[in-house]
Amino acid sequence: KEVFKPMRQREVKVVKSVMVEAYTISPETAIEEAARIMMDKGINHIPVVEEGRLVGIITSWDIAKAVARNRKGAVKSIMTRNVIYTHPDEPVEVAARKMEQNNISALPVVDSRKRVLGIVTSEDLSKLIAR
Amino acid sequence: KEVFKPMRQREVKVVKSVMVEAYTISPETAIEEAARIMMDKGINHIPVVEEGRLVGIITSWDIAKAVARNRKGAVKSIMTRNVIYTHPDEPVEVAARKMEQNNISALPVVDSRKRVLGIVTSEDLSKLIAR
Ligand SMILES: C[S@@+](CC[C@H](N)C(=O)[O-])C[C@H]1O[C@@H](n2cnc3c(N)ncnc32)[C@H](O)[C@@H]1O
Repeated sequence: KEVFKPMRQREVKVVKSVMVEAYTISPETAIEEAARIMMDKGINHIPVVEEGRLVGIITSWDIAKAVARNRKGAVKSIMTRNVIYTHPDEPVEVAARKMEQNNISALPVVDSRKRVLGIVTSEDLSKLIAR
Repeated sequence: KEVFKPMRQREVKVVKSVMVEAYTISPETAIEEAARIMMDKGINHIPVVEEGRLVGIITSWDIAKAVARNRKGAVKSIMTRNVIYTHPDEPVEVAARKMEQNNISALPVVDSRKRVLGIVTSEDLSKLIAR
């Protein structure tokens, strides 16, 4: 059987090889509950999902900001809505550049319909240079 | 003039070439004040210093944890005391491995007397693979 293989296929490391499972929450989730999930799972970033689609992201940095401003309530009041994301087949170098250019430390991984498939963090990327 | 050069000197990228300035606080700093510094400076990690020496680290994740547990008070009540750190001349691969093995996202950079010279984060390391 013949299979078409793009050139240099093996040399390009893509996002799906480094992404990890993402826990997601709804915009109505309480900030304290988001904090609890971060603590329980040992994570810093939670994609926010509505009707199965990515609508925001909340990070431990946003929670620190809420503490500094004495804000309470639902995640939707403090989440970032303009989410920068990546796709499973995007090269890791492109994902790393998106993080650098936007001064962020994680990208939700979505499909063409913006359903969340996972997440890739700067921690996952820096493992690539660990020896 | 002859200068001794170790082999492969130029090929080894070291921590001092990627580290950034660190803002430090004292153990007596209020948690809210630490949160405010993270927000103002756009950072996730603050080394805690006493008499000029590194004694702990507090991160936005620790602040999320304090929110989840409804803890208030001084940084010393929630900081991590057993800090994993690095040195300016450590290869970045070694720093990346320390982060991976300890599941952490930053290392304070210290001198031989544990004075804080800067910090290196997984965000700084993942920039090395950005294109
Ligand atoms: C600008 S960064 C500054 C701190 C640090 N560089 C970091 O990434 O944690 C913090 C803000 O970035 C937002 N953020 C994180 N990941 C994001 C993403 N993929 N798209 C858009 N905003 C994001 C967070 O919601 C937070 O408000």
